[in-house]
Amino acid sequence: MGKLIVKKFGGTSVANTERIEVVADNIQLEIEKGNQVAVVLSAMGKSTDELISLAREINPEPNLREYDALVSTGEQISVALLAMALLKRGINGKSYTAYQLGIKTNSSHSRARILDVEVSKINNEIQEGTVPVITGFQGMNENGDITTLGRGGSDTTGVALAVALEADECQIYTDVDGVFTTDPRVYDKARLLKEVSFEEMLELSSSGAKVLQLRSVEYASKFNLPIRVLSSFNDGEGTLVQEEKNIMERPIVSGISSIDSEAKLTIRGVPDVPGVAAKILGPISDAGIEVDVIVQNISAENNTDFTFTVDKSDAVQAENILKHTSDSLGGGSVEVDDDIAKISIVGRGMRAHAGVASKMFEALAASEINILMITTSEIKISVVIKKSEMKNAVKSLHDAFDLDKELDS
Amino acid sequence: MGKLIVKKFGGTSVANTERIEVVADNIQLEIEKGNQVAVVLSAMGKSTDELISLAREINPEPNLREYDALVSTGEQISVALLAMALLKRGINGKSYTAYQLGIKTNSSHSRARILDVEVSKINNEIQEGTVPVITGFQGMNENGDITTLGRGGSDTTGVALAVALEADECQIYTDVDGVFTTDPRVYDKARLLKEVSFEEMLELSSSGAKVLQLRSVEYASKFNLPIRVLSSFNDGEGTLVQEEKNIMERPIVSGISSIDSEAKLTIRGVPDVPGVAAKILGPISDAGIEVDVIVQNISAENNTDFTFTVDKSDAVQAENILKHTSDSLGGGSVEVDDDIAKISIVGRGMRAHAGVASKMFEALAASEINILMITTSEIKISVVIKKSEMKNAVKSLHDAFDLDKELDS
Repeated sequence: MGKLIVKKFGGTSVANTERIEVVADNIQLEIEKGNQVAVVLSAMGKSTDELISLAREINPEPNLREYDALVSTGEQISVALLAMALLKRGINGKSYTAYQLGIKTNSSHSRARILDVEVSKINNEIQEGTVPVITGFQGMNENGDITTLGRGGSDTTGVALAVALEADECQIYTDVDGVFTTDPRVYDKARLLKEVSFEEMLELSSSGAKVLQLRSVEYASKFNLPIRVLSSFNDGEGTLVQEEKNIMERPIVSGISSIDSEAKLTIRGVPDVPGVAAKILGPISDAGIEVDVIVQNISAENNTDFTFTVDKSDAVQAENILKHTSDSLGGGSVEVDDDIAKISIVGRGMRAHAGVASKMFEALAASEINILMITTSEIKISVVIKKSEMKNAVKSLHDAFDLDKELDS
Repeated sequence: MGKLIVKKFGGTSVANTERIEVVADNIQLEIEKGNQVAVVLSAMGKSTDELISLAREINPEPNLREYDALVSTGEQISVALLAMALLKRGINGKSYTAYQLGIKTNSSHSRARILDVEVSKINNEIQEGTVPVITGFQGMNENGDITTLGRGGSDTTGVALAVALEADECQIYTDVDGVFTTDPRVYDKARLLKEVSFEEMLELSSSGAKVLQLRSVEYASKFNLPIRVLSSFNDGEGTLVQEEKNIMERPIVSGISSIDSEAKLTIRGVPDVPGVAAKILGPISDAGIEVDVIVQNISAENNTDFTFTVDKSDAVQAENILKHTSDSLGGGSVEVDDDIAKISIVGRGMRAHAGVASKMFEALAASEINILMITTSEIKISVVIKKSEMKNAVKSLHDAFDLDKELDS
């Protein structure tokens, strides 16, 4: 008996009707293999951005219920067109909005979370040979209002649908061939990974690899649903993201991520007393600003320097908050540096291998790269360095850990 | 206490965000008068045509369920944008798709008929000061599929919603100032009518005046709901379309419609036996072609010439069918003439006045216009003439019946 596969195609994969025909061909091939298919689509190319522009013409900060009602139309267009293309091939494609299907979410407009996916109806249809084509990125709340899941939410729809359908695999089609050891645009020796664990994918996603949306990986991990990341432009097996298995290859380091979209903020000379971190970060968090790397150093005279990074777009707001905090704590100057990059090495092999960190620091030192901040987790080590040294750092580390070779010992 | 008014705005009235702001101003003014408002919108400008082009790129004859799912997105965009514009003005606008509201239709995709409109929810919201903004042109069938009502269907949505809400009036905003005695582009002496009866509006609509969709007038007439046709570009009272009342002005002729979009087909020398009309028109009707004017003349030797008009776009197909029919009936030649125009005079006063037809024919004769076909109903007389004489005919008749003057005796 064949498999049940949920295929999710992103915006570039359905950017125009030609691309939609390619997607229809892909689905036809899968069916000819004897598999059953359900499909989740993003909106065509830049169509969501065009809708957002229209909204901003009316109001730069539009009402979020109406914003969601507006932008959800993008996926409704792509699913209807793909259903037409499938029907043309003699495949019984049938479009569904999240609303028609019953994808229930909470009421957090523009960043809603999926609570439940109603699949009894399409389950029967799939058994009868229908290919349901479902709008990604959206749902409805308990009032019957349309909600959206936020940027990249279509990945989460794909995974949630696959979980609800008890599918064998969720295939996420993008414009890259899969998950690489590092960004191929940063280092051309980057190698496509055949497999990666959920845990590693989560660390890679959260530290800059934008192949999969973080939430979708969390969701898949929670329900142990294998995700395969593939290109809709090139053939290939892509990367399988699944639960860590003993039979999986076990390199020390699987991948290196790099981002230069953060800024570093430092508040100097605050009293080194218990609770000072909470006093500094509390107001930042209250303003809805996400903090990434955090480092606290003891300095002279029982004072401390406190440093953290935020997304560049939040840097000005965070700086203002920090100045207030410094005044009330009797602290010193506030410094902002957005000329930084963050490099992370990720690998579940680290757990069992001592010396990974020192190998990393040695490689960076050999390339005369100065480390500004360090932070570690069980399977990740991140360093913040000067932005101009980002590419050089990635290459040094990629070489040091032999990531261009198929199997690290 | 204020009135409850349903306002329907067409595609040109919401063609861009500037026009949508003008619509929001209109609604704000109505609310400041102490009235309650519900709104129905068409899709923005040519957006529906763009969606249809996309569908045609996939399949020139796309599946109709998917076609409806696709084109229904146009109105979803306009209603969300108008709700944003109302909220910006401190008015509690709230968009609804026909799906969310529960506009139930039959399953005739792309030309569905409204069966029921669920208004209990928005009725409560209107009482609390909300302005619901509802997608025109669409609904859902009993399977939960999205349906559309066909071109101009938003007028019908407006009227159906007004009937369900027991509104005082349905205002249809267009790009013209109302219903005129004749098309102002054909004759500049055309006069705006303050009032017109449902019956007259039906005859004017069906004979070429495209101000209101025929079905919406039928619907309003059935439930005796007054419609007001207004311009969203100019101020003015527009034209009130309502049940004939004794207090209404009572001209013999209210208006003149003219169209040049039909072709005339003649089949010569068919045997003049009972049932021949059915044998000729049956196959035409079976092909889904609508026939307008029909004339049958006895000719020599118990043969008859049979002539009728169809829309030009159907003329080639109708000609082919007619040639088959002529072969099987032993008839003569088939002739097609698309160089024609149809002029109709409409007025409920005709009933009580003899001599309207002869006055019409005299006026045309005085202008040396040859009549090719004549057909009459209780409140309408139509003639088919050469297309080149259309404007001249309209002017002659407009003058002959003194339509430029406020009250005809």
